[in-house]
Amino acid sequence: MAERVSERGGFTLPGEAGYEDLTLRLAEKWGADVIRDSDGTRLSPKILNAGYEIYATLCIIRDHNEWAKKHPHTLQQVFLISDPVTATGDTVEIPLLERYFGEQFSVNGSAEAMPYWQVFDRTLNAEVERSNWRYDPGMKSVRITAAVPWHRYTISFLAFRVWEEINMYNNVTNHWTSEHLMQLDPRHHEVQEYLFAWLDRWCTEHPKVDVVRFTSLFYNFAFIWGSSPRNRYLFSDWASYDNTVSPLALKQFEQRMGYALTAEDFVNKGNFQVTHWPPTVRKRDYMDFVSAFVAGFGKKLVDAVHQHGKKAYVFYDDSWVGMEPYGERFSQIGFDGLIKCVFSGYEARLCAHVPVETHELRLHPYLFPVGLSGAPTFKPGGNPALDAKKYWLQVRRALLRAPVQRIGLGGYLHLTEGFPDFCDYIGELAHEFRSIKALHERGEPYTLPVHVAVLHAWGKLRSWSLSGHFHETDKHDLIHINEALSGLPVRVSFISFEDVKAGALEDVQAVINAGAAGTAWSGGESWADPKVVEELTRWVYDGGAFIGVNEPSALPGGDTYLRMAHVLGVDLDTGEKACHGRWAYEVIPEEGLPAEDVHLRRKENLYLTDGKARVLHEDAGMPTFTVNGFGKGKGIYLTSFRMEPQAARFLLDLLLFAANIGKEQYYVTDNPYAECAYYPAANTLAVVNMSGEKQTARILAPGGQVRVDVEPYGFVAKVL
Amino acid sequence: MAERVSERGGFTLPGEAGYEDLTLRLAEKWGADVIRDSDGTRLSPKILNAGYEIYATLCIIRDHNEWAKKHPHTLQQVFLISDPVTATGDTVEIPLLERYFGEQFSVNGSAEAMPYWQVFDRTLNAEVERSNWRYDPGMKSVRITAAVPWHRYTISFLAFRVWEEINMYNNVTNHWTSEHLMQLDPRHHEVQEYLFAWLDRWCTEHPKVDVVRFTSLFYNFAFIWGSSPRNRYLFSDWASYDNTVSPLALKQFEQRMGYALTAEDFVNKGNFQVTHWPPTVRKRDYMDFVSAFVAGFGKKLVDAVHQHGKKAYVFYDDSWVGMEPYGERFSQIGFDGLIKCVFSGYEARLCAHVPVETHELRLHPYLFPVGLSGAPTFKPGGNPALDAKKYWLQVRRALLRAPVQRIGLGGYLHLTEGFPDFCDYIGELAHEFRSIKALHERGEPYTLPVHVAVLHAWGKLRSWSLSGHFHETDKHDLIHINEALSGLPVRVSFISFEDVKAGALEDVQAVINAGAAGTAWSGGESWADPKVVEELTRWVYDGGAFIGVNEPSALPGGDTYLRMAHVLGVDLDTGEKACHGRWAYEVIPEEGLPAEDVHLRRKENLYLTDGKARVLHEDAGMPTFTVNGFGKGKGIYLTSFRMEPQAARFLLDLLLFAANIGKEQYYVTDNPYAECAYYPAANTLAVVNMSGEKQTARILAPGGQVRVDVEPYGFVAKVL
Repeated sequence: MAERVSERGGFTLPGEAGYEDLTLRLAEKWGADVIRDSDGTRLSPKILNAGYEIYATLCIIRDHNEWAKKHPHTLQQVFLISDPVTATGDTVEIPLLERYFGEQFSVNGSAEAMPYWQVFDRTLNAEVERSNWRYDPGMKSVRITAAVPWHRYTISFLAFRVWEEINMYNNVTNHWTSEHLMQLDPRHHEVQEYLFAWLDRWCTEHPKVDVVRFTSLFYNFAFIWGSSPRNRYLFSDWASYDNTVSPLALKQFEQRMGYALTAEDFVNKGNFQVTHWPPTVRKRDYMDFVSAFVAGFGKKLVDAVHQHGKKAYVFYDDSWVGMEPYGERFSQIGFDGLIKCVFSGYEARLCAHVPVETHELRLHPYLFPVGLSGAPTFKPGGNPALDAKKYWLQVRRALLRAPVQRIGLGGYLHLTEGFPDFCDYIGELAHEFRSIKALHERGEPYTLPVHVAVLHAWGKLRSWSLSGHFHETDKHDLIHINEALSGLPVRVSFISFEDVKAGALEDVQAVINAGAAGTAWSGGESWADPKVVEELTRWVYDGGAFIGVNEPSALPGGDTYLRMAHVLGVDLDTGEKACHGRWAYEVIPEEGLPAEDVHLRRKENLYLTDGKARVLHEDAGMPTFTVNGFGKGKGIYLTSFRMEPQAARFLLDLLLFAANIGKEQYYVTDNPYAECAYYPAANTLAVVNMSGEKQTARILAPGGQVRVDVEPYGFVAKVL
Repeated sequence: MAERVSERGGFTLPGEAGYEDLTLRLAEKWGADVIRDSDGTRLSPKILNAGYEIYATLCIIRDHNEWAKKHPHTLQQVFLISDPVTATGDTVEIPLLERYFGEQFSVNGSAEAMPYWQVFDRTLNAEVERSNWRYDPGMKSVRITAAVPWHRYTISFLAFRVWEEINMYNNVTNHWTSEHLMQLDPRHHEVQEYLFAWLDRWCTEHPKVDVVRFTSLFYNFAFIWGSSPRNRYLFSDWASYDNTVSPLALKQFEQRMGYALTAEDFVNKGNFQVTHWPPTVRKRDYMDFVSAFVAGFGKKLVDAVHQHGKKAYVFYDDSWVGMEPYGERFSQIGFDGLIKCVFSGYEARLCAHVPVETHELRLHPYLFPVGLSGAPTFKPGGNPALDAKKYWLQVRRALLRAPVQRIGLGGYLHLTEGFPDFCDYIGELAHEFRSIKALHERGEPYTLPVHVAVLHAWGKLRSWSLSGHFHETDKHDLIHINEALSGLPVRVSFISFEDVKAGALEDVQAVINAGAAGTAWSGGESWADPKVVEELTRWVYDGGAFIGVNEPSALPGGDTYLRMAHVLGVDLDTGEKACHGRWAYEVIPEEGLPAEDVHLRRKENLYLTDGKARVLHEDAGMPTFTVNGFGKGKGIYLTSFRMEPQAARFLLDLLLFAANIGKEQYYVTDNPYAECAYYPAANTLAVVNMSGEKQTARILAPGGQVRVDVEPYGFVAKVL
């Protein structure tokens, strides 16, 4: 490991009133140039006057309970759907909130709201006439008359969300007893006026604050809780637009778009509009409508901050719906910086490429007694230094590829007191960060001549991420692929099916389409467009490589289930091929592509279409990794992908194979547990250890092979 | 085991010319009353005159090569589909037979056939105009002009089948070099006249023959071979109608039905019309049309046999398409008996309930050097006695429930000469068979008060079977269930969705719906009918038990994937529930339902709908066996079912549980490896050993518990 170097800058420290000496001591030790507050902490004058730049956290739509109570109709809302109830006679009584957490919701049975309620006969999938049902506000239930016996009915209704979700989560998880915070919907003109005035006053009252750190803007992701502790998190979609709705929004939408949305557009048979599913045209319209509002009012607030001579950063993790940083309108808001909390490499890349001046990563662990899963962190039994190393390992390899300007921590600084090894390690980590940043400042890292495009229904809008953190989306192959890609020395784009038709494949060597059938990641209905299939087919025939994982291009209704089966040479049987023979094959591995390290999942319904695809790996009689020649190009199929150092290395080698580039490349290590980047301007190799054991890497360079030894979790910068 | 008893009757022996002494000696030893010929064997005068009844095998549409060569247009045909070819420019040349076994097919490019050919753009799933393609008879290929580059094209065409499939299979498998036999299509009037005259003459020339054993009538199951030895059996559907087609049949169909079928109705995008898939309305119409013809001409032939004073039996395993024994028209043909080759119990039940006078089982092993899978039987390394025991084990338990009149063997008798233990065992087996038959003759066996209806798209037509032997369909849960049911002391029906609506549930305690989504066994589109769901829901609410296995009632498009999810309390996530919470649960087993013996397969996408279903068994966090109370009834879910003695016993106990009958029942054993039946009229318990080890069974009877010890593979009849 590199020796300790005295350095300062690019580091944001969470200060804590009452622990002024600790704050300033660690600020010195870690080389902080910024001190921030955290949720529930305050900065004292001693800290504010210590010569550091100051960030202050603002959750603009929360912390206004007094005003909210006087204007309850301005609370944020959501469409909910009752449990389905089977009619056993011709009347049915359906309680609305039975399945929902009572402290989170309050039925909105107002005159403005009722026209948006819907009752459905789910057996027929048809709406029930309004004359046949009636809401009972006392019972909070709906009574349906003229029901068809044995049919199932649901009620879709509007509810106010009376407890802001982040506050609710923290309160319940930590058994806090503080007042439940509410959240205002700035869609209402009076809320806008109130919040604008409030922010203006706040800026005036906080002259020491240099940066207003918005967390984030207006609308939270959907986090709908259940009444039963056996199923508390009924619905959690970190990118959904469910929480943006209200009668006012629906009215304005109809005025602008010329057509009306219904409750069903939101509750969607009880599925809601899951981000993992391709968006409908109506959902896209609604997202555009909401984004326009968020950008418009967001800009007003940011402008106000600027007028006070402060900068405006946004913490991209809580109420960020409608301000997606890869959305078309994000730049209009005018943020000076974006702060992203990161567990993983793909989150670092997500942050690094956002069009703002300053990119900051809030590292983990959060300074809190327990971690997200409830395991001990800063309390007996915890090992926060090891946690920090493991998270940094994931993030660091991505930072080798794309720089950010800043890192930082969050939480309660005093908790670090019993953990000196943690405090020491953060010092080392900050040094590594500054070393990597300095390399980037000299010039970009060397990239192999491979441009890989990840193809899915969302395209650029959901670059790098799916809809949340790794552990929330780890059942999807694509998040594993994105994570692997985040540290590889290749160029990566995220493209949509529209992009394909618009010529996005022009300079691309490999397209990855990875996911389960029907999902946004596989593409679902997008594959019904023959122009998409034509263009991809032409592109592969002319030399491109289409890499399909799990159920790529899957769509029922064709003569093949995978619409790219003709390129892949494999398909999946949906049961209609029950009487069809299966091709016998020999496994012919490719040297340097050891698929046995990748843990490819067995897929029982996979078959070779015409027997011409080469099987490179199998699981007891079922192919798991195949390559099919198609014109000058290739169709490559993997049953699954799970991120591990060996799998990331496999993916790199697969991309070299896909692009017809030899495996022997400069600045690639011979060890999956030791990755490297080369910075030509600095003539320096940066080598990172992806494991808790010492690693040796041999790296081919124009001057010959270079050997680098790296300590466990370590980092080496070596001038060539 | 019971001591040897001298008995005779109910046994059909395959005789063999040249082995007259052996034939007569074994006929005596096994108590045969009938001697038959087999494919490739002949009976000599000494055998014919030995005082036995004589069966003679006739494959009516085969063995007419000389006549066939003079009338080649009367050979049977089939629709085939070329491999799809991707256009790389605006013309494409597609070879027709490249994927097919050249010795089996000959393209029918005649003037009558060509109007039925179709060219499809599979990228658009649209037919290509006839003016844009042309058949080249010399090249056996089609040239498409005005193709869209990068689209995929297929040719659907008619082909003569120039080698009868059973003969082809035997020839190729056994490396025979005899002449390829052809098969005539009796749809042609001249074929009917020829065959009728031929049969009439044959009967006259064979006065010693008592029973004409048709194998079977006119149309073979589909058995389409490929050109590559790596995928020889391209398509094998033992119940499909593919082989019944011809321009003449299509013309007659159009005249009768008022609409025309197309090639696509048969090739179905290359899937063909798989029997495991629900039939379309057009397929049902076509089946009805073919069945009417088969019954009509079949009756003429049977009448002719009767006029010669002979009986007509049918061997139900080869060319039986259009004469399904549970079809409405089967009885019209007038067969006196049905012979079924059996590996399994469900096949014995299939035979036993057919409306004919005589039911005969042809047991396995076939007297042949190797078995179906190529393993040695009557040659060094084989153990035919053990094979016979194992097959008999499966068949015998079904015979305890429903009687047949006869058993028999097939093949080459001289092969038994080196296997005296086999010859001895067949004697024992014949004794057991006669003992069971005698019990049935005294009166029906006792049946528990449980009527179970197996619900699928085919209903009664495919009672007991799916579309072939066990090993051909063993990926389907239902064949395992049918096999388990074949030996259980319950009443079993097979019903369709139409039957459900027509009141078939009236006296049913349990409905089983078992299969993969979309299949005929799960039901596919049949579940879109709200009347079906209504009636089943009502019936469960009133006390019935709906038992769903694998993907029961699955159909996309509803608010639940399983249309009976409201009854089952579980559903399957198709990916749209990716953001939904899962119910935590406790496993609460039911005493006497040890699901760990059943090997329930993990199903990753299973979830509890409202958390109310009870989980009785799980696999590492995923429920595999659940019960949900619904009104007075139950919804029961199993992820899978695999036949084993323990699983059969589990199913019986599950049915008792479903029907709310206590586990303590008379005439049920305490040992899954020893099953029993009770015959009240004979006051006798028949106990069979389902294993190769000695078993002890304790059986509750009105007089107290009865203990029975049974030898390995053995049988005991005990008077109470």
